[in-house]
Amino acid sequence: MSESSAAPYELYYWPMLQGRGEFVRLALEEAGAPYVDVARLPEGEAGGVQALLGLLREGPAVPPPFAPPILKVDELVIAQTANILLYLGRHHALAPQDEAGQLAAHQLQLTVTDLVSEVHDTHHPISSALYYEDQKLEAKQRATSFIDQRLPRYLGYFERTLERNPAGEGRYLVGSQRSYVDLSLFQVFEGLAYAFPRAFERAKADAPCLLELREHVARRPRIAAYLASERRIPFNELGIFRHYPELDAAGS
Amino acid sequence: MSESSAAPYELYYWPMLQGRGEFVRLALEEAGAPYVDVARLPEGEAGGVQALLGLLREGPAVPPPFAPPILKVDELVIAQTANILLYLGRHHALAPQDEAGQLAAHQLQLTVTDLVSEVHDTHHPISSALYYEDQKLEAKQRATSFIDQRLPRYLGYFERTLERNPAGEGRYLVGSQRSYVDLSLFQVFEGLAYAFPRAFERAKADAPCLLELREHVARRPRIAAYLASERRIPFNELGIFRHYPELDAAGS
Repeated sequence: MSESSAAPYELYYWPMLQGRGEFVRLALEEAGAPYVDVARLPEGEAGGVQALLGLLREGPAVPPPFAPPILKVDELVIAQTANILLYLGRHHALAPQDEAGQLAAHQLQLTVTDLVSEVHDTHHPISSALYYEDQKLEAKQRATSFIDQRLPRYLGYFERTLERNPAGEGRYLVGSQRSYVDLSLFQVFEGLAYAFPRAFERAKADAPCLLELREHVARRPRIAAYLASERRIPFNELGIFRHYPELDAAGS
Repeated sequence: MSESSAAPYELYYWPMLQGRGEFVRLALEEAGAPYVDVARLPEGEAGGVQALLGLLREGPAVPPPFAPPILKVDELVIAQTANILLYLGRHHALAPQDEAGQLAAHQLQLTVTDLVSEVHDTHHPISSALYYEDQKLEAKQRATSFIDQRLPRYLGYFERTLERNPAGEGRYLVGSQRSYVDLSLFQVFEGLAYAFPRAFERAKADAPCLLELREHVARRPRIAAYLASERRIPFNELGIFRHYPELDAAGS
């Protein structure tokens, strides 16, 4: 059930990349929820990175956010991607509404979170404070391990999850309707195809149902409109899913 | 509000280490909730690692769990540490009961999750499938970055969070009572003190309120009883918090 909020949502995230903010953007878009992507507004309109840094460093939130994305809902300041989705799932019917279904969706989202974190570490295995160029050798090792071991394990897991959810008829990971988990898996697939085109081409052969889910999500009217709009930032080498050909070639 | 369940909770986790299961154990202990630590039962009593692997590989859960810890509550099979705590927080008054408070607690727990994952990667920066000995050099680099940059950042963040929560009177991270977040922070501190005694000794000078919180938690009657019992597995080099002196010495 959609609840209308007095003010539009305010999303605070790095304006030049998809990153973890993209999982929130996709949920807001699918819900048709009015939102302002604050840091993408001009600084003259109280936007820009300054707006994000201000909220991070000097904002009054209790508890303070540790990192973006951050969603402001009237007085509420919610951080941590999966936590924001938990909230949006509940308020915009983007997840089952019963307790078991909510926990199931959230459990899957936290596994997506783990996967995303592992993807990040393929290019930053030593330190986020160093450039990729300063940890290239280690990145290649970590990417090899990711492509050969972790990626098949995650894809196999989500494929099995899809098969095991009879209510979803092979289209929805949890329950009998699309949820934020489906949107997030779609985003992961887009990201993997961008970052590791070679490795993903091989790996996806074992995930036929997930590939269909990806197509279904891409064709949802609001998602299709979003992807075609300027609101969708293209993938680039500032985000989590980065295309470094030498890492894509790392797998055996 | 404590709800009594027909059957005791069943926790499924690796029997020889604290790991991520410990955050769940501490919550169950503090709640006084009856539970069976299934894999620590003898195999003859349907316990042992086999019981865990059986649930992971052949269990009927929808969705299936990706990894332990897993909590069985009657028909419900909940995975992902923070998700389990979300459930226990709600059913055993281990977190605020209003929506804003639940989200706040969960947000903090997900930041603990991130911290714990970074601690794990100090000894396994390249691959979980390799031995520590096979990634020692990279581990030293990653541990240096963790100790010098990430650890102070996390401690500063949680210290600030404690200061900013007037209802907690410096003792509780969220709300006006102890929550699963306080228990988890306690566990993180115990783990850091075990794994990085030198580095932690230096870092903790900037977190005086957190140190008090750690003491408060350790003195809670049920926690104190648990820590003194055989149910508490000692820290060891199979878990997340591992003491490798060369990594502790890595920071500048």
